[in-house]
Amino acid sequence: MNVSIIAGGAGFVGCNLLPLLAKEDRHLMVLDNLCRGREEYLDAARAAAPGRVHFIHVDLSDRAATLLAFNAAQKLGTVDEVWHLAANSDIPAGVLDANVDLRDTFMTTFSLLEAMKVHQVPALHFASSSAIYGDLGGVGLHESIGPLLPISNYGAMKLASEALISAAAESYLVSANLFRFPNVVGIPATHGVILDFVNKLAVAPDHLDVLGDGSQQKAYLHVSDLVAAMLRVRGRSTDHKVEVVNIGPTDEGVTVRWIAEQVVARVKPGAEIRFGTGNKGWVGDVPKFKYLTDRMQAYGWAPALGSPGAVARAIDEIARQQGH
Amino acid sequence: MNVSIIAGGAGFVGCNLLPLLAKEDRHLMVLDNLCRGREEYLDAARAAAPGRVHFIHVDLSDRAATLLAFNAAQKLGTVDEVWHLAANSDIPAGVLDANVDLRDTFMTTFSLLEAMKVHQVPALHFASSSAIYGDLGGVGLHESIGPLLPISNYGAMKLASEALISAAAESYLVSANLFRFPNVVGIPATHGVILDFVNKLAVAPDHLDVLGDGSQQKAYLHVSDLVAAMLRVRGRSTDHKVEVVNIGPTDEGVTVRWIAEQVVARVKPGAEIRFGTGNKGWVGDVPKFKYLTDRMQAYGWAPALGSPGAVARAIDEIARQQGH
Repeated sequence: MNVSIIAGGAGFVGCNLLPLLAKEDRHLMVLDNLCRGREEYLDAARAAAPGRVHFIHVDLSDRAATLLAFNAAQKLGTVDEVWHLAANSDIPAGVLDANVDLRDTFMTTFSLLEAMKVHQVPALHFASSSAIYGDLGGVGLHESIGPLLPISNYGAMKLASEALISAAAESYLVSANLFRFPNVVGIPATHGVILDFVNKLAVAPDHLDVLGDGSQQKAYLHVSDLVAAMLRVRGRSTDHKVEVVNIGPTDEGVTVRWIAEQVVARVKPGAEIRFGTGNKGWVGDVPKFKYLTDRMQAYGWAPALGSPGAVARAIDEIARQQGH
Repeated sequence: MNVSIIAGGAGFVGCNLLPLLAKEDRHLMVLDNLCRGREEYLDAARAAAPGRVHFIHVDLSDRAATLLAFNAAQKLGTVDEVWHLAANSDIPAGVLDANVDLRDTFMTTFSLLEAMKVHQVPALHFASSSAIYGDLGGVGLHESIGPLLPISNYGAMKLASEALISAAAESYLVSANLFRFPNVVGIPATHGVILDFVNKLAVAPDHLDVLGDGSQQKAYLHVSDLVAAMLRVRGRSTDHKVEVVNIGPTDEGVTVRWIAEQVVARVKPGAEIRFGTGNKGWVGDVPKFKYLTDRMQAYGWAPALGSPGAVARAIDEIARQQGH
């Protein structure tokens, strides 16, 4: 039986992907440092595929430990793909200390590639990010635009990972998919603007302080649409080695102001919303971007939910998750 | 007195840059691991600027050692710029073992940026590479083209370095210049196709074995033109933080076949040239590329020598260097 390795698979995106992969007749080996992920997030996949969902608690920036985990996976069958979803997801933390993204976002890529080289694993699916584009000033972002000047260490280490994967594809990988994620929402929420707002209102129910003036506008995708998109591209022919695709909604997104209003309406109606100044929430925050997804659409994919629908659904899901 | 730090300054490009920097009333602190560089390459600059050219033998992938070297430089005066010319320059070695480019090309960037953050050094000039473009199939390469899919770990780690510098410019650097080098020729030659050919003919004077079929065509720049270009951009206003410039000749380059013929004619007339097969010399070699340099020309710069002139001059210089 074939084996999928899912690096960072106990996190937000991973545990939404697992139940879909579990429908196939294969073993799933989840590798995660449980920094934000949790082993109980695997419960749904384990119920769907008894005996086929495995977990190793491992720091993937540790190359020797990563290789040992691959050895364990190889004992289950032939490892034919790696999903690399492991990364630091706290962008401001990475701006303050570059070591965070170096270790959790870049060295995880390095370790995984080294282990794939040793074990001759053919296919890699990588969670890249719109952050690799930096701030190109509102121009439509297609996959071939440049220059790529990320403004956060998170974006820098995602771009660095893309570059390393690309070189590996020339040398030993059979195929690699670089999925450039937008802002993704849904549950289990471990971070992000919606969870922040819900948590702030739990602490101080009468008001909500918003970083920046609320005009930051971004596209949001629901995690259910994201995993469907990745699985669609995964089935492509491998006549070209590296595929780069923006995954996102076709709309221009919603503002932070609108999200704040929706969260207040759902969680604490009547709470006062207080805005800061400036159109960036933090260093490394890209104030506005427009994502072009023609390439993804050519795969016959379109999201079921646009940005407003994705955010509205996620607000309700996260509010329930937090006990509202 | 201000201080320039020149990382990798005892190497090929560094020792061509130093005599020009030495004309300014400033200290020059060269940091180099002497992997390919040599301390005697600093002699010309030391003669031109007695007491102002300093050297520390240091591995810049070692963050603590890098910080100590910056402390030493700071004792001479205010460090106002860093030239980052340190890298592995053996592309095939880096393809075989990704650790080489990780350590010498990327972690050197990481260490230097960390030290610049601590010491609040405002300006960085970085030796990037045409290798970041990967193999885009003969299309003209301008600075805004994508996707950037390097095909060697060397190119990957140069792109990774660009990304990290870009994020640093958003956070603490005042300005950064990303110079995308073409193939650069001249002396002191430490590596490269011309030196390889000259050395092969010294060992076996009757023939010259060429990797690939000789049709690989590349643009070459003489190092004297390269350093002039970098100094031109260094003087720009800092109204935008990050400048990315291709530096290269405007022609489409010369073939490996032509270079082989010129080397044979200069060093061992009559030696038989034997070609291999394929249009790539090694994994990670980009067979042909066309470099667009409009942005550099807008700085009022044009190379004194095109590719044929640069290669011809370098062949003569390298032949002399090797005792012919």
